[in-house]
Amino acid sequence: MCELLGMSANVPTDICFSFQGLIQRGGGTGPHKDGWGIVFYEGKGIREFRDPDPGVDSEVARLVQRYPIKSCYVISHIRQANMGPICLENTHPFTREVWGENWTFAHNGQLPHFDSLTLGKDVPIGTTDSEHAFCWLLQELRTTFDRSPDPQTLKAFLHPRCEQLRAMGVFNLLLSNGRFLLAYCSTKLQWITRRAPFGKAQLTDADVAIDFAGETTPNDVVTVVATEPLTNNERWHKMLPGEMVLFVDGEFWAGSGGK
Amino acid sequence: MCELLGMSANVPTDICFSFQGLIQRGGGTGPHKDGWGIVFYEGKGIREFRDPDPGVDSEVARLVQRYPIKSCYVISHIRQANMGPICLENTHPFTREVWGENWTFAHNGQLPHFDSLTLGKDVPIGTTDSEHAFCWLLQELRTTFDRSPDPQTLKAFLHPRCEQLRAMGVFNLLLSNGRFLLAYCSTKLQWITRRAPFGKAQLTDADVAIDFAGETTPNDVVTVVATEPLTNNERWHKMLPGEMVLFVDGEFWAGSGGK
Repeated sequence: MCELLGMSANVPTDICFSFQGLIQRGGGTGPHKDGWGIVFYEGKGIREFRDPDPGVDSEVARLVQRYPIKSCYVISHIRQANMGPICLENTHPFTREVWGENWTFAHNGQLPHFDSLTLGKDVPIGTTDSEHAFCWLLQELRTTFDRSPDPQTLKAFLHPRCEQLRAMGVFNLLLSNGRFLLAYCSTKLQWITRRAPFGKAQLTDADVAIDFAGETTPNDVVTVVATEPLTNNERWHKMLPGEMVLFVDGEFWAGSGGK
Repeated sequence: MCELLGMSANVPTDICFSFQGLIQRGGGTGPHKDGWGIVFYEGKGIREFRDPDPGVDSEVARLVQRYPIKSCYVISHIRQANMGPICLENTHPFTREVWGENWTFAHNGQLPHFDSLTLGKDVPIGTTDSEHAFCWLLQELRTTFDRSPDPQTLKAFLHPRCEQLRAMGVFNLLLSNGRFLLAYCSTKLQWITRRAPFGKAQLTDADVAIDFAGETTPNDVVTVVATEPLTNNERWHKMLPGEMVLFVDGEFWAGSGGK
């Protein structure tokens, strides 16, 4: 399996603290050592960093942990390979251009019969079930919409399709185009929204603590989504299987499903 | 204007030395301070690093200079903006998936009436003439070929289209899909192939020298393409306006045109 990390914020915010916690699980405190990746949105543009090597040993991951890149939307992934060999083209997140926007996708789970999903113009570069499912979702979007739908419409459209994928196996999802963060839970996904009054947080996977009061302004709203809580002294919201949540500008925007 | 850097090699080779020379021109020894980017192929996958800030001041560029990432195909670009504001989505290189491959493009020059080029399914994310021209070339390819053509066929197909773009302005190009490096010269582009017996090289833009004999094996063949020579003690091949050259596995594969 793998682990996911996502962020939505109302002001450009760095993710060094959360990423520092996640990356320990990439071969240190967790077994997800088969590559990692992270995508930061800056307006319509993205920066991405990735490595097929374990996150805990990665020189590039060390840069991402210490160098504060400010962004309103971030998606990251650490991989424990089950379908597709360990190589750069099989590391998440995957990004494709649709309607002149960068769409970014990361998946935790597996979809054994993924090749039954019919593709269109977007085809996978690697050999994972995940990238195949991403290309299928893009095809579904392209054949239905002529332009980028608003986030609520998108959520309503994607929720039944994510249910369809969940019925094929395990499908925990993070998706963004730099204007929203969409999270869908098949088995494991949790989130936390931080806002004033900000407090202290302690990572679960490293002896690192932060006082967010010293790093933020009173109007900042930042939501972090992760497979498992990254801190051990805060209350995270555990998503239910089948639940989809939309975050915009750091805020919980809409939720549905779950059983 | 901007500057280009490309590499084709028969064994995975790092580009730290050449990139160290190029990046000085990103606000140091040259005026190309409006962003930079680099794409490394590893098999079908890519790593990319980019920044809208000047290369000489970039923390990420410092990593790329000192951390040896081994690759057989690399494309890099430093930008001096003329069309499109300075932002992440306007930094080169641009990469898109076609036929399940990453296609990477970087351009030096300008195409004043670029919006006369009709696009298809691939549309720009940013606002540069360059990305528009890239999307147009991809559309030309998609409507002509059902699968990725061999490099020679591709070269024959793209040469007249590059001539068409050159007639619209200035169009120096580097293009790769990880199996070839294609260079097209409109005004300025030079290349050098290094092979045994390897010698010493001295950067033009920094007090840095290297003895390639200590960094290579006797069978290594590495070609570097750049807007202006990066070293001051080697002989570079100056391309002619209208000339297109194809490099495969570090070797000059085919050339045509030029006047």
